Amino acid sequence: MSLRRQTTRHDFQAQSSIRDRRKHAEHAKGVSLQSLFIGIAIQEGARGSLDVGFAAHDGTYSIDFAVVNLSIAAAQSELAESDPLASLGSGISYSVDRPGSSTPVIKDDMPASLVDFFVEKIREYQRKHFYKFTGAGINTNALRHSPELAARLWQELDIVTLVIPEDPSLDPMFADSSNHNVRVDEESDTMTRKALLHFGPTNQLRLGIGYRNKVAVDCNGHAHLALFDDYKETVNAETTWMATLKYAEALKKDKVQIAFFNSTPQGGGVALMRHALIRFLRLVGVDASWYVPKPSPEVFRITKNNHNILQGVANPDVRLTKEQVVMLDNWCQQNADRFWTLRNGALAPRSEGGADVIIIDDPQMPRLIKIAKELDPDRPVIFRSHIQIRADLADQEGSPTSEVWNWAWENIKQADIFISHPVREFVPKTVIPSKVGYMPATTDWLDGLNKPLSDWDAQYYIHEFEGECFKQCMNQLQYPAREYIVQIARFDPAKGIPDVLASYAEFRREYMKDKPIEQIPQLVIAGHGAIDDPDATYIYDQTLDLLDTKYPDVRDDVVVMRLGPIDQLLNALMSVAHVALQLSTREGFEVKVSEALHKGVPIIATRAGGIPLQIEHEKSGFLVEPGDYKTVAKYLHDLFTDKTLYNKMSLYAATHVSDEVSTVGNALSWLYLAQSLTSGEDVRPNSRWINDMAREKVGLGYRKGETRLPREGSLDLSHDKTRGDRELE
Amino acid sequence: MSLRRQTTRHDFQAQSSIRDRRKHAEHAKGVSLQSLFIGIAIQEGARGSLDVGFAAHDGTYSIDFAVVNLSIAAAQSELAESDPLASLGSGISYSVDRPGSSTPVIKDDMPASLVDFFVEKIREYQRKHFYKFTGAGINTNALRHSPELAARLWQELDIVTLVIPEDPSLDPMFADSSNHNVRVDEESDTMTRKALLHFGPTNQLRLGIGYRNKVAVDCNGHAHLALFDDYKETVNAETTWMATLKYAEALKKDKVQIAFFNSTPQGGGVALMRHALIRFLRLVGVDASWYVPKPSPEVFRITKNNHNILQGVANPDVRLTKEQVVMLDNWCQQNADRFWTLRNGALAPRSEGGADVIIIDDPQMPRLIKIAKELDPDRPVIFRSHIQIRADLADQEGSPTSEVWNWAWENIKQADIFISHPVREFVPKTVIPSKVGYMPATTDWLDGLNKPLSDWDAQYYIHEFEGECFKQCMNQLQYPAREYIVQIARFDPAKGIPDVLASYAEFRREYMKDKPIEQIPQLVIAGHGAIDDPDATYIYDQTLDLLDTKYPDVRDDVVVMRLGPIDQLLNALMSVAHVALQLSTREGFEVKVSEALHKGVPIIATRAGGIPLQIEHEKSGFLVEPGDYKTVAKYLHDLFTDKTLYNKMSLYAATHVSDEVSTVGNALSWLYLAQSLTSGEDVRPNSRWINDMAREKVGLGYRKGETRLPREGSLDLSHDKTRGDRELE
Repeated sequence: MSLRRQTTRHDFQAQSSIRDRRKHAEHAKGVSLQSLFIGIAIQEGARGSLDVGFAAHDGTYSIDFAVVNLSIAAAQSELAESDPLASLGSGISYSVDRPGSSTPVIKDDMPASLVDFFVEKIREYQRKHFYKFTGAGINTNALRHSPELAARLWQELDIVTLVIPEDPSLDPMFADSSNHNVRVDEESDTMTRKALLHFGPTNQLRLGIGYRNKVAVDCNGHAHLALFDDYKETVNAETTWMATLKYAEALKKDKVQIAFFNSTPQGGGVALMRHALIRFLRLVGVDASWYVPKPSPEVFRITKNNHNILQGVANPDVRLTKEQVVMLDNWCQQNADRFWTLRNGALAPRSEGGADVIIIDDPQMPRLIKIAKELDPDRPVIFRSHIQIRADLADQEGSPTSEVWNWAWENIKQADIFISHPVREFVPKTVIPSKVGYMPATTDWLDGLNKPLSDWDAQYYIHEFEGECFKQCMNQLQYPAREYIVQIARFDPAKGIPDVLASYAEFRREYMKDKPIEQIPQLVIAGHGAIDDPDATYIYDQTLDLLDTKYPDVRDDVVVMRLGPIDQLLNALMSVAHVALQLSTREGFEVKVSEALHKGVPIIATRAGGIPLQIEHEKSGFLVEPGDYKTVAKYLHDLFTDKTLYNKMSLYAATHVSDEVSTVGNALSWLYLAQSLTSGEDVRPNSRWINDMAREKVGLGYRKGETRLPREGSLDLSHDKTRGDRELE
Repeated sequence: MSLRRQTTRHDFQAQSSIRDRRKHAEHAKGVSLQSLFIGIAIQEGARGSLDVGFAAHDGTYSIDFAVVNLSIAAAQSELAESDPLASLGSGISYSVDRPGSSTPVIKDDMPASLVDFFVEKIREYQRKHFYKFTGAGINTNALRHSPELAARLWQELDIVTLVIPEDPSLDPMFADSSNHNVRVDEESDTMTRKALLHFGPTNQLRLGIGYRNKVAVDCNGHAHLALFDDYKETVNAETTWMATLKYAEALKKDKVQIAFFNSTPQGGGVALMRHALIRFLRLVGVDASWYVPKPSPEVFRITKNNHNILQGVANPDVRLTKEQVVMLDNWCQQNADRFWTLRNGALAPRSEGGADVIIIDDPQMPRLIKIAKELDPDRPVIFRSHIQIRADLADQEGSPTSEVWNWAWENIKQADIFISHPVREFVPKTVIPSKVGYMPATTDWLDGLNKPLSDWDAQYYIHEFEGECFKQCMNQLQYPAREYIVQIARFDPAKGIPDVLASYAEFRREYMKDKPIEQIPQLVIAGHGAIDDPDATYIYDQTLDLLDTKYPDVRDDVVVMRLGPIDQLLNALMSVAHVALQLSTREGFEVKVSEALHKGVPIIATRAGGIPLQIEHEKSGFLVEPGDYKTVAKYLHDLFTDKTLYNKMSLYAATHVSDEVSTVGNALSWLYLAQSLTSGEDVRPNSRWINDMAREKVGLGYRKGETRLPREGSLDLSHDKTRGDRELE
């Protein structure tokens, strides 16, 4: 069918301030946009027409609305067939007539499809009034007529969009209301209020935990962030994508259930990876669930200490006591008893409805491995370590690290596979070598941290950042009048922030001293403000002190910020930067490096942990030894003065990020392991990369020209002997 | 019982930045505080001790916690009896020992009661770390042991506190969790998450609408904002308070049900008054409910137009059409049928469980009066007009105003009582004089707009305001380095904003020209940014244009801001101002005038509508003719130069606000009407003030020295002949 006519029964009435418009025109860096929510409802009208309601809401009040009638002709009708637009869009196509127009409207005046109609209508309304929609609710009818709507609102307009189920009990404001016989203006208004219930005080989607403490990723799928095809475009369609689908099909055919367990549904890279993975597997149709325990502040204090002890960064006085071991094990057992070992619980034996593969992240709940094996000894269990374990300390009997490791290992040793970041030094000797497989940390190219932001949205977040700087009495970012260099990382002793300052000062003093100020870039050091981490506060203070004492000459051009949980803010900050730094002195895998490259931002980073695996020295960025600030300064100078080098590096970076660090690449490894283990294969990685095993098994090994993380990296990453393998010959 | 010992099992561990501390010390105006939520749980431990858990949460993550054990001795024990503190606090008293201390602790080291312990603990934690708790959840056990806790957290620490019911299904994050057998640290953590569910994206408490569209004021009473005794302190305990309680007792005895109806549960003075009234009546124990319709954007567009037409401010082309009349009446009927006329619905006949008195605000749903009377003709129905109706236009046949009025009146005329603001010009001639009674608009001295804010909290909101100014690219407030003058009002053509600018410019040019800049006050014009009101945008633009064209010399010292819905921000802005203005050219009652006075902020305002009723010229403030900016400038000069005058006026203002403009005064009038009408009295106000009738009936007429709004005001308010009646001789 195609859309024949658009009649606006009531248009939005908001008036935008002419003064604000002028301010927007004057300030290239932008004036704040008002953040709003939008509701969209479609109702089927007479003779196949569609009534569309839009409602705008400021989080407290309903502020504006519009009602449009779209008349539709069947796809088979001569009109639709003669309509050049009917074949556009994804299956369903619409044409839109302007009100009062009796002839077909020419192409550049009308959207190609219903989803384009929505996107354009909202984009136009936003631009006219300096609004920024951050959240939306649409009714199921809208999704039926425009299946891509929710995901496109997120990907193109950066609007988190919830599809509101037809259940009147969910209306937060009007519990007594059902939607029968409501007009479309009322229904769109209701959609905003229903959607709002899912947004918390920081304007972020609330995290929900459902029955048996299963993480309700993306509001249990009501928030659509990406389409199946969107993911296809993030990786090599002929290799990574094909291989992934093959395992997915096999698992779907065998109805394999995969269960992930970790200690927290939010905060940090592991949770980000799991959200993205579950989101993708839902689109693919693989039955995967993710469970977390009921949070316990007292237990989490212990598990955080253990984490630091394993990484060798805790105070030597901090040790795991016997009482704490009992507390941890009891806590784990209680959570298992309460949520997971019951009939049809994920840890129940397969004969009682339990999952077919169990995957356990990190040693907060190692006892779950023991419990799973006791209940169903033949069921495969995988342990995934995301920690850069100081294997040398773990191997040293009597050290605090060995105490924690020995306790964890007592449980972990029962797992069938031990997955580590691809750095051999992170794997203690006790781990049976045949069980060890490597997987990198991964990131998601479609989530808030990485999806492309329009200028409109990037400007909004940069202005939000500036507002935060103002509030924290910090120096102001002067972008776009001046470029900037960014390091996005936690305020952690291992992130090399003193080296970042030294590098910037050296760069300023050696290479920039004669430049006019507007040609001198600023430096931004930003990270999540983890208040519960005493180190973070110390490092933050140390950074400001260093600026005062050692670098007073450049101090006013350095912006040091602790930020909240808004992904797009970090995305904008990284995207708009000229150069990124990652000068860690110790590192795990740090996927921020790949994120910068993916955005085409050249990065200068240290040869630490998994970082050198991600950068091709002098091609996608520069690698330096930790602490070598003079070389960093030189590279900064090169990147700010040599345009040819910069552009070449930027393009190379954006086009040479391995599929392995993406969600689909991550899924490929997990699906391979799940499929192989559940079909009874004796999987022995023997310190190989799971990705290689996954691709080889389906005959889709690496091809010439394909970007791959270097494999030698698993041997010794402390020097740059790892190049050459990236583009296979 | 008294509290014997305090053992801290785990204390908060957050580290505050030394740098931030330094910034706080350097900037008198403050650095932003981090906004957080707190959870408090009490569990009863062994031998009557109490385990107390505190959890801090940033809206996304749990960031810190503390566990304290309080050991308690029975009040009758010799220790408690010998404890000098045992008699302090409200009935329940506690003493607190420091850990390790074996002797009783001296008084100034320990809180007087459990509630003081909580308030002090949280205050201290906030100050140490530059936190600002904005919301809290406490378990029912905490309320049982410390009944004042929730209300005191709001009144003293400005924390909206929810008492979380013991219903596991309400835990947003852990739907599957119940609280049996959870430790107190877990329970306090759960409390934060449960509380968070009730806060929306603007960090404000969500508005809930319950069964049959009854407004769930203060989360159905789960948010405690004030205690019974707090209200007592807001009015004359011997007159207003006593009279109110007498009617309340009678109504409770007769089990009278009162039902209020208006069109919207939020936005504007009517909703504010109803929230406060229901909150107070709940504490008093009177059965009062408040109902709203399901919102309809299309209908609301019509009712807004009607509102403007009645006030004579609509474009003359805008008229109420016959189709719109049908739409309005149908909408009203549908809401009544769906929610209110069913058995036990508020509008059902009393014999079928309907309410005993019906009170209907404003003419959005006048048909409800007809419906109520049809179903139960003898039941009293009161109509309350809050609009400054242009009675002259309503009386003029054929005018747009008369069309709207005639339609409304067809329904309204069936009401038993017609309540108007005390301005005769607001009452059309058609209204039967014997039915007319006067009541002023009222405000609440304990809500976010008016409760006293500590310096800590005021500083937080002023800094938030400054952040908003930055975001909107507006001039910065330089308080406390410089004083400021404020007008808080909507951007409405009748609010006299051009006169505010003219007055300020005159003041600057005539009286301030030789002063150093730091002695020259700034001007703040702030109001809610009602985007759906095209006028508001026009007036905002006009204000900025005027500054550019007519007042470029003072432009940089004028802060013009449209603000969000945060009450305390307006509260802080008014409280900290040196002088307030309210230079309306046309006005209803405008309770902002009394609010300024109540804070001890002298105000200069116009003789318009109900304003002169609220100000005693030259005593609590100054009255001027609309448009007389030269006189305003002179008074500004007086208030900024004559300290004696200022202090005297400030003190007089703060101590001479009539009880009539407060929630308790409002309740008195409504309870009087409800009690009298339901006991069959023939109530005929005959254009009297309901307040007078209410006080006289219970023999508590006005006494010498009591502040009363002047009664002649109802005759002619256009000149200042209304003084003298305020303090009765």
